[in-house]
Amino acid sequence: MFSFSDHSHRRFNPLSGDYILCSPHRAKRPWLGAKETANVQQLPSYDPTCFLCPRNTRAVGGAVNPDYSSTYIFPNDFSAVILDQPDYVDHETDPLKKRLLITKGVKGKCFVICFSPNHGVTLPLMDVPGIVNVVNAWLKLYTTLKTEHATGKAPYKYVQIFENKGAAMGCSNPHPHGQAWCLDTIPTEVNKELINMTKYRKENGTHLLGDYVKLEQQEKQRIVLENESFIVVVPYWALWPFETLLISKEHLRSVEDLNEAQKVDLATIIKQLTTKYDNLFNTFFPYSMGIHQAPFFGTEDEMESSWFHMHFYPPLLRSATVKKFCVGFEMLGEAQRDLTSEQAAERLRGLDGEVHFLRK
Amino acid sequence: MFSFSDHSHRRFNPLSGDYILCSPHRAKRPWLGAKETANVQQLPSYDPTCFLCPRNTRAVGGAVNPDYSSTYIFPNDFSAVILDQPDYVDHETDPLKKRLLITKGVKGKCFVICFSPNHGVTLPLMDVPGIVNVVNAWLKLYTTLKTEHATGKAPYKYVQIFENKGAAMGCSNPHPHGQAWCLDTIPTEVNKELINMTKYRKENGTHLLGDYVKLEQQEKQRIVLENESFIVVVPYWALWPFETLLISKEHLRSVEDLNEAQKVDLATIIKQLTTKYDNLFNTFFPYSMGIHQAPFFGTEDEMESSWFHMHFYPPLLRSATVKKFCVGFEMLGEAQRDLTSEQAAERLRGLDGEVHFLRK
Ligand SMILES: O=P(O)(O)O[C@H]1O[C@H](CO)[C@@H](O)[C@H](O)[C@H]1O
Ligand SMILES: O=P(O)(O)O[C@H]1O[C@H](CO)[C@@H](O)[C@H](O)[C@H]1O
Repeated sequence: MFSFSDHSHRRFNPLSGDYILCSPHRAKRPWLGAKETANVQQLPSYDPTCFLCPRNTRAVGGAVNPDYSSTYIFPNDFSAVILDQPDYVDHETDPLKKRLLITKGVKGKCFVICFSPNHGVTLPLMDVPGIVNVVNAWLKLYTTLKTEHATGKAPYKYVQIFENKGAAMGCSNPHPHGQAWCLDTIPTEVNKELINMTKYRKENGTHLLGDYVKLEQQEKQRIVLENESFIVVVPYWALWPFETLLISKEHLRSVEDLNEAQKVDLATIIKQLTTKYDNLFNTFFPYSMGIHQAPFFGTEDEMESSWFHMHFYPPLLRSATVKKFCVGFEMLGEAQRDLTSEQAAERLRGLDGEVHFLRK
Repeated sequence: MFSFSDHSHRRFNPLSGDYILCSPHRAKRPWLGAKETANVQQLPSYDPTCFLCPRNTRAVGGAVNPDYSSTYIFPNDFSAVILDQPDYVDHETDPLKKRLLITKGVKGKCFVICFSPNHGVTLPLMDVPGIVNVVNAWLKLYTTLKTEHATGKAPYKYVQIFENKGAAMGCSNPHPHGQAWCLDTIPTEVNKELINMTKYRKENGTHLLGDYVKLEQQEKQRIVLENESFIVVVPYWALWPFETLLISKEHLRSVEDLNEAQKVDLATIIKQLTTKYDNLFNTFFPYSMGIHQAPFFGTEDEMESSWFHMHFYPPLLRSATVKKFCVGFEMLGEAQRDLTSEQAAERLRGLDGEVHFLRK
């Protein structure tokens, strides 16, 4: 008999439209490769050399941070996109080049969002009101940038809000912070999801993520956390070992749709999820996470199909030092994972989401 | 005036169908994050603890390697896919589950290919006849597995041949080796390329990669290496800082189509490219590389549209220790790079492809 926890199979990701290969029996292989450094030391609340701490001077340009007391948003000193550059005009006439060297201009703005003045905390070590402040910072960015579009000040279309946490995820400063890259276009991954969610809605008359929430509530085995407004699951099609998907239960399109109770529910479930993550291997669990939500403007389909959700992509696999590598086969062939989503969810569900290992 | 080397833009990858964001001005940002360990020590030619060296015992199962003298192929002791498992039969009747929990069975076989008995070499440190042996090992795998399909012995459809090199790429043993994962399906990334190459051929009556070779030969600025049979370019749409694409100039569908002269040309250009890579930062340059070629069988379109090529995905960005992280924005938004493909090609072109830094 075919068994999901013993036999290789492929699972379809309806958001991205791609299959991933799941090889559950492979979880037994010993690890002889590179190891990450475990990270369990709490940092001081202020670091005079940190360019994100209040009152300190930034990495370049000589700007000085204000003496901020909750969150602090400023433009990234090394923005990947800027507003002030010439338009790209395509003058290509050569037919071969027109077919194979396809280029688009892109403008935008990048921001850094300090979550707290306290250098030594992370989301799971902050209190719920502190995380509500972070949610409000996301909201402020979203509404400000949307207004700049609406008033013709800037051509912004989408803001990608995210956090890279931990050195393993390319984070270069442990001060708790995230980023927001705002573009005049919908980025590739967001666009794929919008296309697939729109297609689903046309075919079924219901929302993909709305239906998925219902299904997971019936099945239960992939649920990690749930409250009045949100659910966190290891999605059926997860790639990263302990990847999760945080979904609003109601049809919220963006942070703009959050009421005050939902903000508290969001902050609470983020705190619980990241506490579980840290408690999994008793380490500051690295991840990249981010929000997928409605663009500032778009087609009726794009706007109506948008459904607020957050992806958490953590690389650790077996311990604080052994991570999953998405290399060779994964890059050239197909995304691949060892343990099943159900196994990962069971582990995460069993962990303490209230008390962080540092506080025990 | 818009300048490709100063202003952000997006470039389209016609093989994958995705855009990537290029932010050339961002190359100036200082790096304060995690660093890789530089790797410049040549290893001994034999390591008694290595489970890939001739005559040694393997990691599990107690098998002993033969006293091989050129290449050595054996089944992976921790295969991600196996042949001997029950068929997956979909009995799902619930409409929601049928829509959202989509599963396919997958069978196959995984192999390890030792490139040489010498523990202390890597492709750039091997001689051309030695690399021709590796090409012949790939060929042997391809034809053997294809025959197993043709004779009804196994349902194989595609073999993904690849190498993960270096600890940064999840390689757990420095003994020179690659892998081959053979599946009864065409993996996601290969399938995307086949779809896009087929579409191109229908629309234009020519081959995407054939046209692309011509275009790069006209433009010259992205060429790294070229010989009678192959060309290596930093593709216009490269994601990784020093990513390259090795393409056959003629329409070869797979390793099976290589004649003896082409095998030597392939071995030579692989040696030169990997020598340049090592000479870029005077380190054993980590990468994942692999072959994309024709499936064992497929639709007429799939077979005719296949065009032999190899992707090299190296992560290093600025030095032996600073790599590119594909995290936050890249995972949630869109693939992103800092320097342009033309800048990367110029650097690689300027490097010695004949004498390895260890031999200087
Ligand atoms: O089979 P290996 O060499 O142990 O494993 C390596 O290559 C595999 C295929 O790309 C990856 O899934 C692993 O993460 C990596 O460590
Ligand atoms: O802007 P930062 O934090 O220096 O950079 C970090 O996040 C970016 C966006 O995901 C990545 O492109 C960088 O590789 C990573 O180091």
